[in-house]
Amino acid sequence: MGVLASSSHPAVATAAQGEDALAALLHLLRDDMAACNRTIVAQMKSPVALIPQLAAHIVAAGGKRLRPLLTLAAARLCGYAVEGQRHVQLAACVEFIHTATLLHDDVVDESRLRRGLESANAVFGNKASVLVGDFLFARAFQLMVRDGSLEVLAILSQAAATIAEGEVLQLVTQNDLSTSEARYLDVVQGKTAALFAAACRIGAVVAEQPAREAALSEYGQNLGIAFQLVDDALDYAADQAVLGKTIGDDFREGKITLPVLLAYHAGDAAERAFWERTIERSEQRAEDLAHALALIGTHRAIEATIDRAAQYAAAAAAALAGFPDSELRRSLIEVAGYTTHRAR
Amino acid sequence: MGVLASSSHPAVATAAQGEDALAALLHLLRDDMAACNRTIVAQMKSPVALIPQLAAHIVAAGGKRLRPLLTLAAARLCGYAVEGQRHVQLAACVEFIHTATLLHDDVVDESRLRRGLESANAVFGNKASVLVGDFLFARAFQLMVRDGSLEVLAILSQAAATIAEGEVLQLVTQNDLSTSEARYLDVVQGKTAALFAAACRIGAVVAEQPAREAALSEYGQNLGIAFQLVDDALDYAADQAVLGKTIGDDFREGKITLPVLLAYHAGDAAERAFWERTIERSEQRAEDLAHALALIGTHRAIEATIDRAAQYAAAAAAALAGFPDSELRRSLIEVAGYTTHRAR
Repeated sequence: MGVLASSSHPAVATAAQGEDALAALLHLLRDDMAACNRTIVAQMKSPVALIPQLAAHIVAAGGKRLRPLLTLAAARLCGYAVEGQRHVQLAACVEFIHTATLLHDDVVDESRLRRGLESANAVFGNKASVLVGDFLFARAFQLMVRDGSLEVLAILSQAAATIAEGEVLQLVTQNDLSTSEARYLDVVQGKTAALFAAACRIGAVVAEQPAREAALSEYGQNLGIAFQLVDDALDYAADQAVLGKTIGDDFREGKITLPVLLAYHAGDAAERAFWERTIERSEQRAEDLAHALALIGTHRAIEATIDRAAQYAAAAAAALAGFPDSELRRSLIEVAGYTTHRAR
Repeated sequence: MGVLASSSHPAVATAAQGEDALAALLHLLRDDMAACNRTIVAQMKSPVALIPQLAAHIVAAGGKRLRPLLTLAAARLCGYAVEGQRHVQLAACVEFIHTATLLHDDVVDESRLRRGLESANAVFGNKASVLVGDFLFARAFQLMVRDGSLEVLAILSQAAATIAEGEVLQLVTQNDLSTSEARYLDVVQGKTAALFAAACRIGAVVAEQPAREAALSEYGQNLGIAFQLVDDALDYAADQAVLGKTIGDDFREGKITLPVLLAYHAGDAAERAFWERTIERSEQRAEDLAHALALIGTHRAIEATIDRAAQYAAAAAAALAGFPDSELRRSLIEVAGYTTHRAR
């Protein structure tokens, strides 16, 4: 997801404030992030040339590196020693775990695009994507072992298991409109928020501030939910050219997300029949996406999803209340706002 | 791969001796193995029901559990305390890593059968197989973290990375008859022998016998190569009904294995053209497998592959020379013989 300059959807406005918040955080942590990027490139190496080639394709495709940034920020917020480098190594682990799940996700979703570029599976094939995902996952654990903290290993191996559970639960709920909002939130917590929470928490671990782990974990957890809710909203609202995201992917895959659930439950019998045909029975015609967008618009389901995201973003900000005021703390609070501003 | 009662291929004879060796090892370690099986079932649990369902499908399908058995045997051979249970937990980790790679392999190979039963991807779909593989991999690391040995974590995370490298290298060499035997052996060492070696080595680690790690690692490494060479031979020789293996899978996928390389290099111009058409260009007709088997027979490529395997099996046995004589040591030496006897 790139720069949000403009969008055709009424709920998506210029998000200069949001972009500024992320840019400000990146600026505060620019040296750490540069070191993290160097670690990522160095640790992708393998005598099997296809591995760094494929990994570079997805890693170089950019993305915001939000998750490793959170590890770096959390460590610094906890007063981690200026000369310390453990947080850089562990931030790279977080990005590797994330990249591995992206590679497997794209295979599972049969995606052809990722961040506006051809996805790794589209370029290199599903087989290579599965296996290089496995490699990055293993390499992440190697890096953690080198760091030597069993606590970090426990947090990130737990997160990895939770991510897989969330992804499987998403698969199980696919095409099932009887999925409750609570179950949808279980999916979101598993597939997205667990790694956000873990990324933040290990920052406190490397800084040896155990009393800060819970608050940072809560910040990450809520930020992750807000982030995913907005992502799910954008799939029915994003300006494809601007976001590099194909609008309607979730619709075509029959994914159960909050905009669909809200529109389905608010709809009349004819509308519910439409959703049951398109989402549950996967019988879709060319004009159906436009109709789905119209129904979601009628019931203001995007706005309601973003409002829900804003509540989680506020909870994320509140979780940092116990930290002394600092530029970094203010920046993290603003980043929580960013997740929702990118869609307003 | 089940009981080898008989086979239609001349190189595959009754293998009572081989089966006896494995049965004897299993008998010596029956209590440990029962505990390991209980751990495997207990640790597959997840609130997401599809995970234990799918995992049970592949785990219950049986297999010999050779890799966890090696961890149990290595620990006991090193005099690990009778009341100790760490080796049981770690043997389960080894099986989980192996199972995760099997799930991903079957997706990558588009296999429909595994050990004579429908493969997990055939029953549950590719998506679920990829994600449950990820879950089992993460769960393996959670169990290792609970065990608490950074050395074990280092050994198994290294093995996991090496397996992925071996699998990617196999993908790269697929359909490429210019692959050297050395490169084929790199694939075998990566995709198979690395986990055999690691499974054995961690037995010495839990028994706190660091001086034994190298020998056990060498035993596992050579045993793993022998095992894979025989597996590759059986793909052109196995009696499908007996082994529960579809003969000719490797041929249809254009996998570069030793029987093919040997027959290709020994062949005349017409034969090489046949291999180039079928393996390199994947242009296969119904009668091609029979012709491939005939060429492999003519050049005694199965026998040559099994001979090569026997050399590695002998090296595996020799690696145990430094251990005092015991029933367990004799049994492990006989198991090395088993890998090749199952194909004679």
